[in-house]
Amino acid sequence: MARIVQKFGGTSVGDIERIKRVAKRVAETRAAGNEVIVVVSARSGVTNELIARAKSINASPDEREMDMLLTVGEQETIALTAMALHALGVPAVSLTGAQAGILTESLHTRARILSIDSSKVEEKLAQGNVVIVAGFQGIDQRGQITTLGRGGSDLSAVALAASSKADLCQIFTDVDGVYTADPRIVPNARKLDEISYDEMLELASLGTKVMQARSVEFAKKFGVVFEVRSSFNNNPGTIVKEEVKSMEDVVVRGVAVDRNQSKVVITHIADRPGTAARIFQVLGEAGINVDMIVQNVGRGGVANLTFTVPRDAADQAEKAVRAVLDELGGGEISLVDSIAKISVVGVGMRSHSGVAATMFGALSEVGANIQLISTSEIKISVVVDEDTADEAARAVHQAFKLDAEA
Amino acid sequence: MARIVQKFGGTSVGDIERIKRVAKRVAETRAAGNEVIVVVSARSGVTNELIARAKSINASPDEREMDMLLTVGEQETIALTAMALHALGVPAVSLTGAQAGILTESLHTRARILSIDSSKVEEKLAQGNVVIVAGFQGIDQRGQITTLGRGGSDLSAVALAASSKADLCQIFTDVDGVYTADPRIVPNARKLDEISYDEMLELASLGTKVMQARSVEFAKKFGVVFEVRSSFNNNPGTIVKEEVKSMEDVVVRGVAVDRNQSKVVITHIADRPGTAARIFQVLGEAGINVDMIVQNVGRGGVANLTFTVPRDAADQAEKAVRAVLDELGGGEISLVDSIAKISVVGVGMRSHSGVAATMFGALSEVGANIQLISTSEIKISVVVDEDTADEAARAVHQAFKLDAEA
Repeated sequence: MARIVQKFGGTSVGDIERIKRVAKRVAETRAAGNEVIVVVSARSGVTNELIARAKSINASPDEREMDMLLTVGEQETIALTAMALHALGVPAVSLTGAQAGILTESLHTRARILSIDSSKVEEKLAQGNVVIVAGFQGIDQRGQITTLGRGGSDLSAVALAASSKADLCQIFTDVDGVYTADPRIVPNARKLDEISYDEMLELASLGTKVMQARSVEFAKKFGVVFEVRSSFNNNPGTIVKEEVKSMEDVVVRGVAVDRNQSKVVITHIADRPGTAARIFQVLGEAGINVDMIVQNVGRGGVANLTFTVPRDAADQAEKAVRAVLDELGGGEISLVDSIAKISVVGVGMRSHSGVAATMFGALSEVGANIQLISTSEIKISVVVDEDTADEAARAVHQAFKLDAEA
Repeated sequence: MARIVQKFGGTSVGDIERIKRVAKRVAETRAAGNEVIVVVSARSGVTNELIARAKSINASPDEREMDMLLTVGEQETIALTAMALHALGVPAVSLTGAQAGILTESLHTRARILSIDSSKVEEKLAQGNVVIVAGFQGIDQRGQITTLGRGGSDLSAVALAASSKADLCQIFTDVDGVYTADPRIVPNARKLDEISYDEMLELASLGTKVMQARSVEFAKKFGVVFEVRSSFNNNPGTIVKEEVKSMEDVVVRGVAVDRNQSKVVITHIADRPGTAARIFQVLGEAGINVDMIVQNVGRGGVANLTFTVPRDAADQAEKAVRAVLDELGGGEISLVDSIAKISVVGVGMRSHSGVAATMFGALSEVGANIQLISTSEIKISVVVDEDTADEAARAVHQAFKLDAEA
């Protein structure tokens, strides 16, 4: 008998029929002799509806009250899911985040989980129940209802898997798993059977929106093995786990394309200590995440500084920097939106040289000009013109033979 | 400074505009220097919507899960009401039933309140907040979410008024208060300024659907003075309180008409001990409330037994009795739906004779034939033909001069 956590997102529980389908899958998992903990999100659309209602009452609603309001979404789903299981003759009991013992910081709309008291979950499992827990929500030490922010239900699932020492955590979503590339861009992209936490983290942060990075980080920290798979079929998905030796045989695990960045180019700024620090200080104060950074020193004591920011923060970034250019002794600033970031990711990269050479060669063959480069231990990213991005991604995918079975 | 509990039902918080109106009224009460505890129901329609969703998943949904599901209705309203108060610059904080310390029995869909730990309410009031509590819901000793059943939000309000030693509890509803009769039947009916708990209880049980009897009983038990008033205007309502001496000056407080009863007539049953007991035993086992009972012994050792039951339980009552008639030695049973019960209520009745004479005289003058009579210390009820009920009620109202100011 194994203990399995199954998480279903808003689309998977979007209406009555889908909730019934989820119940059927859970019932099958239990009938196979497993203990099952289910984590569900609010039905898709419900959260937006509640937000709209709040905004029509108060343009900037209090965060504590938003948490009070939004947590009704999952509370509805857990009750309906329990009823659907009962209709199949499966004993099941629903628990809110608070009842499931999910203790968080006293921070509303984006609390971190501090600990989980899983005694109630254990008690209900021991009685033979499927235990259905409301994702996304918790309670702080003072009994206030909190929410975990974006990707919160995945986090609930991974955290419950850790606290209840589950054998497996299944994240059911609307994709079949993690692919070597986005199949809409690279038609011969292949679903991966497994991937390491670090590779998944790099892919998550690179715009492969299967899961938020924080849930993967949490899983890594607590060694929770999880599977990303589709709620609409029975195909096996992708197992995400600690890196094992054999994973290093694969040099590159996947190719990611991120079109949600803009390039900020600052030219003719004084080449003296503190200039870059001041610029990134004002960006930090404005809450803007900076991704890739390249600085070149030119002739005559002037420097050029280029960096990328999320596209929806680009105008704000430009404004923030422009405000300090005079103080820094002048300079020019420009924005380029038409860029894309192509990245290759793989833990095997560490022990193989020549990855950059292969990647850059493939890019050059399709005429994709490299504007910026950044690397980490298991990732190489380049910025290219947005128009060449898809072809570039296909070329890189091909160069690393990612369409072939490992 | 007074402490006031204000309760608003589903119609009063039915949409965004109404929630804003409730917030405005609460803000005014607070601006007048009062501490305010607000109790709200689910928006009208929400509960039925949730029930429909549950039934489409499971024809007989589990009661625990129904409570989990239905309590989201009030949780939504408390958050929205808090946001509406914030929009008016009023500090406010919402609490679920559990957070407000409303401890109930471990019984789902119809739990009784065991106790209230009002420390959280006191803490939030002390910080200057309006405290908004979800009506209808509580938590049991094991941390399960429970609901209080029909009229539950009124009960929450009265119970919170008791536990927080409020000076006044205002029940805002869609009527202006308690009337001497239903104004749709008796056009010159008059709103009462005050009424005793016992009179209100008799009226509640007689089909004047202002409030459920259990909330009035609770208020009586804990001496909570409450006011029933309209959420749609600023007219003073009706104060419900312990009987005071002057109340006895009014012999009859009001006239009630109840059309939701049917008459069950059993004839030719054996006149021997145990017959009536057996009949009411089977009715009790079937969960049918019997109201008025009259038994006549005829000639030849046979008896007639007549009683009234709620109209929607009449068929079930007939079936239950028919099943035991043979065992009792035979008899005939018939149902009469076209009846109405006219009642007069007043604590002053105790010390005045002649009330029955006045009532029966008025009925006789309009040709309303009395089929059954029952009395309590502060009430006289008669069953008449349904067709004569309205005229009968007007005649009785007139006979006791209820349209004149006391």
